[in-house]
Amino acid sequence: MEIAHSLQQIKSSYIREILIAAADKNIISLAGGLPDAKTFPLDLMKATFKKLTDMPEVFQYDATIGYAPLLKYLSHYYQLAPTHIAMICTGSQQGLDLIARAYINPNDCIIMEAPSYLGAMQVFGLVQANIQTISTTHDGPNVSELEDAFIKHNPKMFYGVPDFHNPTGICWSLETRQQVAKLCIQYDVTFIEDAPYRELRFTGEPLPMVSHFCADNAIVLRSFSKIASPGLRIAAVTAKKSYLEPLLKIKQGADLHSSVPIQALLLDLLQHPDFPEHIKTIQSLYKKRYHVLFSELKKQLPEGCELKPVDGGMFIWLSLPPCDTFALAKTLIKNGVAVVPSPVFYPHPENTPSALRLNFTNANSSELREAVSRLCRVLNATLISTQ
Amino acid sequence: MEIAHSLQQIKSSYIREILIAAADKNIISLAGGLPDAKTFPLDLMKATFKKLTDMPEVFQYDATIGYAPLLKYLSHYYQLAPTHIAMICTGSQQGLDLIARAYINPNDCIIMEAPSYLGAMQVFGLVQANIQTISTTHDGPNVSELEDAFIKHNPKMFYGVPDFHNPTGICWSLETRQQVAKLCIQYDVTFIEDAPYRELRFTGEPLPMVSHFCADNAIVLRSFSKIASPGLRIAAVTAKKSYLEPLLKIKQGADLHSSVPIQALLLDLLQHPDFPEHIKTIQSLYKKRYHVLFSELKKQLPEGCELKPVDGGMFIWLSLPPCDTFALAKTLIKNGVAVVPSPVFYPHPENTPSALRLNFTNANSSELREAVSRLCRVLNATLISTQ
Repeated sequence: MEIAHSLQQIKSSYIREILIAAADKNIISLAGGLPDAKTFPLDLMKATFKKLTDMPEVFQYDATIGYAPLLKYLSHYYQLAPTHIAMICTGSQQGLDLIARAYINPNDCIIMEAPSYLGAMQVFGLVQANIQTISTTHDGPNVSELEDAFIKHNPKMFYGVPDFHNPTGICWSLETRQQVAKLCIQYDVTFIEDAPYRELRFTGEPLPMVSHFCADNAIVLRSFSKIASPGLRIAAVTAKKSYLEPLLKIKQGADLHSSVPIQALLLDLLQHPDFPEHIKTIQSLYKKRYHVLFSELKKQLPEGCELKPVDGGMFIWLSLPPCDTFALAKTLIKNGVAVVPSPVFYPHPENTPSALRLNFTNANSSELREAVSRLCRVLNATLISTQ
Repeated sequence: MEIAHSLQQIKSSYIREILIAAADKNIISLAGGLPDAKTFPLDLMKATFKKLTDMPEVFQYDATIGYAPLLKYLSHYYQLAPTHIAMICTGSQQGLDLIARAYINPNDCIIMEAPSYLGAMQVFGLVQANIQTISTTHDGPNVSELEDAFIKHNPKMFYGVPDFHNPTGICWSLETRQQVAKLCIQYDVTFIEDAPYRELRFTGEPLPMVSHFCADNAIVLRSFSKIASPGLRIAAVTAKKSYLEPLLKIKQGADLHSSVPIQALLLDLLQHPDFPEHIKTIQSLYKKRYHVLFSELKKQLPEGCELKPVDGGMFIWLSLPPCDTFALAKTLIKNGVAVVPSPVFYPHPENTPSALRLNFTNANSSELREAVSRLCRVLNATLISTQ
């Protein structure tokens, strides 16, 4: 049976291949985007798991929009305007997929930063969007490029990750947030604010979300994968009601609704008095690991490599002198460390800047030290020999 | 923001409106397709829910295909051929959606029975399939019409519910199963076997699945919603590996994977020594309710109405003399009973036979008796006045 045309254009995910290689226990993986399983708040879930079997209603079919008590809680928690609603998705990846399916016709234009999140490129690729990219500075997207792109391409959406971007770790400045919001309103472009790392800030104070400045022009994806557990597969999407109604129609066909016992579990977890402390624990663990990775890299990296400090999230972006990053990633695997090469994060991967994405949340400090020494040994040998 | 063209063609689901009306506690609902929440095997899940928090691995990201121990179990349980695999979906509704997205281009033809399952019409509508229908007999699809349709339309797929069809309750005969399988092989059409009600047989012996006779030409959707719990949102899809690989690619973008703790829960439930007994309990409860509904209808229905006995499932299909079934359903709601009118089950609802779908699994015997008396009172008044 021949597959659909839309699927024929989707390349197999190189990152998956790396992750398979990285499962080898002799390899230290900085490749994935996994939270540390030891941080999952399992103790805070115990009581709820015990009581679920006394709640037969959460085992029945439920509304597509989500479990009513959870929606009510989130609506208050996110201080949604009366015209705005929350809906529950099977992970925020599903939220993205629903947005793409509900709004994008083949060749409709959407704007993304480059580099950008792979999973977003995938879903917008599946609906055959015309993906246009703009470059980023250390403050976030290049705002004048963004305005030019809005004028030139008349896009439906701009997709961004303002807090600790995947893969670069960049956190947009307050000014950039305000400017982006203003442009979205001015040119009537919907901002898709993907915020999975927002709570993983370990330095400085939180900035307002971009959607705070353009609420009626934004759809916000709110993940619990990094602060609760990714295995649960529960996220929320919030926006004005008229924006989410088409998503609900698609979701009804896509999976009817998300797992209800897991939604009930999440509600209890979010309300647990120890949950804020749990988030602080993760933040300080990841801060420690980030400092190990960053400072060891600073010490050992050869000349020509560039590192940007981050204030949160899960990744460091290591810029390299021009080189074949795929070949480099393969050599690194052979030398016991897995990383992701930059081209996989670009919708148009030709002539992209050479860089590596390094994750610091899923290896402990001594593994991170060993990984850096393996990485820098290879970089010193390779980069010097190719110069 | 303008919605995608594909979504513009999807009508809002009339059945949803009825279900909302049916939530009124003065109305007895025979409209939904809900299992009885009192039958959920919560006691059999208790021990697993308690131990989940000792299994941090099920709270981490997992493979798109599903939780490995569950896949291993299902592969054995379904006695899959070595070239065949199982994958886990967020309910079998997602399995259907993935099939449609992986294989159907706009205007590709698929064949369905008429009437047919609403959720299937919805997902094939979303990918803008050319849906052609064939009629059914009490043995299943009209096989000679099916062959004509295969020749005329050269379809990619034939979608069917051979065991206790939704909405008609029909169970395909052995001969029809063999003939359909033979035609699918002969004309190289993939049979999509949707089997959510297969385990709800309360009379007679199970027949082999259609896919048993055309394993390499079939994709099978295996739901646990009716025997375990629909709120969990976990199902399996089985087929030869090459058929499922494109589905996995789509699922990766659609939700990464389904909830892992819930997959672990389902595995334990399926292996629980009391689970077979639990299924027997459901079967005998639904058998009893079916007999109440069927025998009361037989006694009270006005002339011109026709009932077909069923051997399992959740529904009775009540054929009526030609009438406006939407108006009838509205009158019935006003008289305290909710049903679903036949046109909603037809992809092309013009000039469809008048009928009502009646559910017998979610109301108890005395409610069913009362519902029949309300229903027949209205039918007697309406049908006689319109004749």
